[in-house]
Amino acid sequence: MIRTHTAGSLRREHAGRQVTLAGWVARRRDHGGVVFIDLRDSSGSAQVVFREDEVAHDLRSEYCLRVVGQVRVRPEGNENPDLPTGEVEVVADEVAVLSEAAPLPFPIEGGTGVSEEARLKYRYLDIRRPQVAEALRIRSKATYLAHQVMDEHGFVYVETPSLTRSTPEGARDFLVPVRLQPGHWYALPQSPQLFKQLLMVSGLERYYQLAKCYRDEDLRADRQPEFTQIDVEMSFVDQDDVIALGEALVGRLWKEIAGHELSTPLPRMTYADAMARYGSDKPDLRFGCELVDMTGYFSGTSFRVFQAPYVGAVVMPGGAGQTRRELDAWQDWAKARGARGLAYVLVQQDGTLSGPVAKNLSEAELAGLAGQTGARPGDAVFFAAGKPSDSRELLGAARLEIGRRCGLIDESQWSFLWVVDAPMFEDDGEGGWTAVHHPFTGPKPEWADNFQDHPAEALAYAYDMVCNGMEIGGGSIRIHRAEMQQRVFDVLGISKEEAESKFGFLLEAFKYGPPPHGGIAYGWDRICMLLAGGESIRDVIAFPKTASGFDPLTGAPSPITADQRKEAGVDARPREEEGAATA
Amino acid sequence: MIRTHTAGSLRREHAGRQVTLAGWVARRRDHGGVVFIDLRDSSGSAQVVFREDEVAHDLRSEYCLRVVGQVRVRPEGNENPDLPTGEVEVVADEVAVLSEAAPLPFPIEGGTGVSEEARLKYRYLDIRRPQVAEALRIRSKATYLAHQVMDEHGFVYVETPSLTRSTPEGARDFLVPVRLQPGHWYALPQSPQLFKQLLMVSGLERYYQLAKCYRDEDLRADRQPEFTQIDVEMSFVDQDDVIALGEALVGRLWKEIAGHELSTPLPRMTYADAMARYGSDKPDLRFGCELVDMTGYFSGTSFRVFQAPYVGAVVMPGGAGQTRRELDAWQDWAKARGARGLAYVLVQQDGTLSGPVAKNLSEAELAGLAGQTGARPGDAVFFAAGKPSDSRELLGAARLEIGRRCGLIDESQWSFLWVVDAPMFEDDGEGGWTAVHHPFTGPKPEWADNFQDHPAEALAYAYDMVCNGMEIGGGSIRIHRAEMQQRVFDVLGISKEEAESKFGFLLEAFKYGPPPHGGIAYGWDRICMLLAGGESIRDVIAFPKTASGFDPLTGAPSPITADQRKEAGVDARPREEEGAATA
Repeated sequence: MIRTHTAGSLRREHAGRQVTLAGWVARRRDHGGVVFIDLRDSSGSAQVVFREDEVAHDLRSEYCLRVVGQVRVRPEGNENPDLPTGEVEVVADEVAVLSEAAPLPFPIEGGTGVSEEARLKYRYLDIRRPQVAEALRIRSKATYLAHQVMDEHGFVYVETPSLTRSTPEGARDFLVPVRLQPGHWYALPQSPQLFKQLLMVSGLERYYQLAKCYRDEDLRADRQPEFTQIDVEMSFVDQDDVIALGEALVGRLWKEIAGHELSTPLPRMTYADAMARYGSDKPDLRFGCELVDMTGYFSGTSFRVFQAPYVGAVVMPGGAGQTRRELDAWQDWAKARGARGLAYVLVQQDGTLSGPVAKNLSEAELAGLAGQTGARPGDAVFFAAGKPSDSRELLGAARLEIGRRCGLIDESQWSFLWVVDAPMFEDDGEGGWTAVHHPFTGPKPEWADNFQDHPAEALAYAYDMVCNGMEIGGGSIRIHRAEMQQRVFDVLGISKEEAESKFGFLLEAFKYGPPPHGGIAYGWDRICMLLAGGESIRDVIAFPKTASGFDPLTGAPSPITADQRKEAGVDARPREEEGAATA
Repeated sequence: MIRTHTAGSLRREHAGRQVTLAGWVARRRDHGGVVFIDLRDSSGSAQVVFREDEVAHDLRSEYCLRVVGQVRVRPEGNENPDLPTGEVEVVADEVAVLSEAAPLPFPIEGGTGVSEEARLKYRYLDIRRPQVAEALRIRSKATYLAHQVMDEHGFVYVETPSLTRSTPEGARDFLVPVRLQPGHWYALPQSPQLFKQLLMVSGLERYYQLAKCYRDEDLRADRQPEFTQIDVEMSFVDQDDVIALGEALVGRLWKEIAGHELSTPLPRMTYADAMARYGSDKPDLRFGCELVDMTGYFSGTSFRVFQAPYVGAVVMPGGAGQTRRELDAWQDWAKARGARGLAYVLVQQDGTLSGPVAKNLSEAELAGLAGQTGARPGDAVFFAAGKPSDSRELLGAARLEIGRRCGLIDESQWSFLWVVDAPMFEDDGEGGWTAVHHPFTGPKPEWADNFQDHPAEALAYAYDMVCNGMEIGGGSIRIHRAEMQQRVFDVLGISKEEAESKFGFLLEAFKYGPPPHGGIAYGWDRICMLLAGGESIRDVIAFPKTASGFDPLTGAPSPITADQRKEAGVDARPREEEGAATA
């Protein structure tokens, strides 16, 4: 090492010692002939004093320096109690400029209000900010803890392929042309799902991986084209085993990093309950405002809008005090979500109900409404009526919006739960069924024999881990019997040909004594974001891409030349016999 | 868990206990009414006794079973001392077939002589073989140990992007079309080199990653299109720091997994020495047979072949006893390597020299030859003469061949060393220079100012870790000054445009106070292969591809449809202005 000490490690006990430091000029203050420089390295920073002005004259912001000097206790009154090294300073005897810095595109210290585009383009400067680097360090620590937990539980770390089979049905696959076999392409995996199930057929029993996954799709909602999962699969297990492991994993992470002791077992809520009470399959339990089912209450109503298969309500505390403009904004908010609007009733301080809906309700309906919804004087009650799933989703979103606007969410709290018993299938809107999870998800034991006869009601043996209203993990007990798998394909309308093309090799493997198995995948970027207190997964990714998949730092993706096309075999057609051989 | 015990954990002290096991039928023996089945799971296997024939009747090889039974000590004389569970057996009370197995494409037990194609196509069955699974478990253990060592040394684990910038010069890049930006492509990284150097500019100081790397090239010499590195980079370090860390890493791995205590510091050999003494930049030190430089000895020779800039020799112990056919085979061997042949002299038991070359040598040359080369009666001496590098390479290869043919290599030994001081540049055969490592490799300090004037002699500040004749790691202290980098580009004939296109963003980053830094990358597949005692890296890859990059299991790569081409934007041309913007 070209230094003897890290800057952040200096303390009073080092006084009198000669030290060599190396780091960056973080801040510089000139005091008539004496120059003070905060020298920053990865451990923190230390104040360096240059007694001769000319030596320090050329040292600009973010120059990289090597400094030899004497540690001394700072003169009384000059201590900085906010800094771990604030009691001492280093009086420089020698300084070497290891490298110079051009004028910075934005200041490292304090600089807020820098555009994300600029931050990402100069990400290496952005990461020099201690809080940005800290998020990456937290991710690193979390990763190591995850390895520890999995090792303690006897898991085998297996790297599954990143260059895998492309299938015509893999709509969001990234494709990769292969120079050595022109006309043939690999696909990047959306997840190691098929491989981890093959590893169970292999008898490895306990697999995990920090797996890079790829999805070529619109990057709404804080997504990245490449993302990381902690991917887990276990044999001879039941749902409780996968859940217990997950609680051990997040328990360790939150204890060691967030200093928060998880109370386990975590609560479990059925999907049906989550939808009914929170209008979400990933409810944020850090605040109340539960949805109220008013279908029965309005069963005899003459108000046309509420003559619906479902009527529900959610209360906004203090919402009666909103201005007309605020109430109108709710209508726009609902319309932006594809709803017609958001019916509401205001409960005035004297208990009377007002607002456009109130006029349409009967005396009796008005009289009991506050009691039924739990609204108090001064509150607003929002309604949704129509198809249960759509209405609940709207109310669930309204609930979250209420939580934010009214400051009901305790940001210091951690709300973990498992959402279980999701439906196996959902209506695909075209008269068919689609898998809520994926087609290898098993039914709950009680639906094993007849899920195919009741696709709308059948429950999956699936479980999602939710934290603060975000899904951070999801998995299921898988199907391991060919006969049951075939029934699922039949419900989903997956033909033999499609099944063969997409996952024929897994079905083939299942002919050879597959064990019962199940697993889960944790969204590692999200978990690290939560642990680091970030607002976006980009906070815990060293070199993230923008929402359009662009990397302002490297300029990726970029056009390729005709030569590259040719060299990579992009335009080659497979020879007839080859195509046939792999079909 | 659907079992109470693992099969491999049963011991005498479990006798009398009721247990539930789950696993696979490994072997079955019928003894008139009683059936013995070895039930295998990931922990090992246990003998299960079925007293009623009809229950066991349908249990075939590799069926997956759940068995409830009583543990008992085996009747005297029936113990199997080769098996950890050999003192006990489980008398089955209940058995459930969890899944059946079709007739196997090859037997799991004992089956040797199965083609690699078949093994890879049914890799999930191949991995059921305990020795195959064990190699994957060793890799997993090694991976965890690596994380431990790096964590103890304060390294930050950072995931760098897999979807990165394609450049026209990236000749072996895999390319990836981007649906959202038709006409634009990502490239998969051949290594995280540029990103890890950016992380040093970021001030992270100690980075590591288990990094997937991709190279679209001929898969000679046991390579895979995707492979794994333990990638390391450190700031403010000198060569000794990177080397010490490497020794800590391999030291831990070999101690914990191979039970071998490394004697550190490992020996270091200069590249020049390695080439002169072993004709290789990755010498296998497990045996002698060093090359002998005979250039001086033959300086006045009248034998035309030896009138060369370099004449060298290597001795084959006992080689004088080879048949004419064997000696001819050496000529073919040499020709297959591109040489004209391999001159030799045989030292007969009486000390006389024979063979075609002997006739061309003078009395004096013959008299001292055995003494000079160290050959004894009965040995053969092989010669190469010509350009030093080519001749040494030929002799180095002959030396390895001699080691193998004569059984000189002690396979139980571990021979580690560092090869240091490689040349910075090598002749590109077209009058120019190419980088021996990569263009960011720094010169040794003594060459810092004038390497550009002596490109043939200048030494790189680079180090390769070699084990048993294989390079298992390579790295260097990097250039961090723009001025020096420019001199390297000048020697390499890399134009400003090419440098800008390939790594403009790194050069830009280097304007902002880059720290001195260096690093190394370890070939993780090779290290795990050595630790697992494998013969190919495919032994330690769960789902490897064949030498042609084909995966017999999934059928990847495969042709894509016209719809896929369209959907993925393969044939889109970037719009003019976009192309310009990213150029």
